[in-house]
Amino acid sequence: MDGINCSIARALGEVGERWSLLIIREAVMGSTRFDQFHERLGIARNILTDRLATLVSHGVLDRIASPVNARIHHYTLTRKGHELLPVLAALMHWGDRWIHAEIGAPVVLVNRKTTKPIAQMALRGESGQPLDSSDIDITAGPGATPRMRQRLKC
Amino acid sequence: MDGINCSIARALGEVGERWSLLIIREAVMGSTRFDQFHERLGIARNILTDRLATLVSHGVLDRIASPVNARIHHYTLTRKGHELLPVLAALMHWGDRWIHAEIGAPVVLVNRKTTKPIAQMALRGESGQPLDSSDIDITAGPGATPRMRQRLKC
Repeated sequence: MDGINCSIARALGEVGERWSLLIIREAVMGSTRFDQFHERLGIARNILTDRLATLVSHGVLDRIASPVNARIHHYTLTRKGHELLPVLAALMHWGDRWIHAEIGAPVVLVNRKTTKPIAQMALRGESGQPLDSSDIDITAGPGATPRMRQRLKC
Repeated sequence: MDGINCSIARALGEVGERWSLLIIREAVMGSTRFDQFHERLGIARNILTDRLATLVSHGVLDRIASPVNARIHHYTLTRKGHELLPVLAALMHWGDRWIHAEIGAPVVLVNRKTTKPIAQMALRGESGQPLDSSDIDITAGPGATPRMRQRLKC
């Protein structure tokens, strides 16, 4: 496949696994310690150990020894990790709309300053105007392989 | 875990698996037939069969017999499936920035009318202003469980 040439495929290689994205969600919600992730996600310890190590190796999480007890580590989001929040927000809004529509959103992301819900995650044009998926074309970028250019006919 | 009460967890339950999101990406790029997904993704036939059936059962893809040959089926995105494009675009922009930064984006989503790249997927406030992850608060929504309310202290 065009995996190596696709930002989606490579992004999924780093974080595209159910537990990884839920661990990042937990980190956004304030969890930092192994036991917090373990308890709040109900994830097996060996899987959690593996996923945390993977996220640290990809630079999504930092692992820092506690200043109080060097045997305890805190996992915090790096800049790269924080910038996954639009992905989580888009997934959350989609789930709110298509899965939780009847009972209402469990959690709402709000603008801290105004306490109003953030705008729905949407495709937007260069001036910020919302676009539908039918308004979008897919074109080859500077990093496109010949195969991808051929496929996109450009 | 709060899985049943979390739109992210439930959304990941429907589409949160590497192959599922790549199948949806292929559908966005125009693939409709089993053999197209198989060839372009390099995915094993039994896994592809399973993932397509799951996406159909969740209403993300429609499965329609070809009018020319009833033994051939076409898989097309439903409205629910099309509305995953913001999730894919957010993942793509994140990968472009954090994984493909040196070689440049392989693929660029553009506004069909203007041919200009769409805006970066970003958290935005109620008036469309971009927000950073530090500008966001997480609050309980109408569908929050008591446990989630307790956790969010509201």
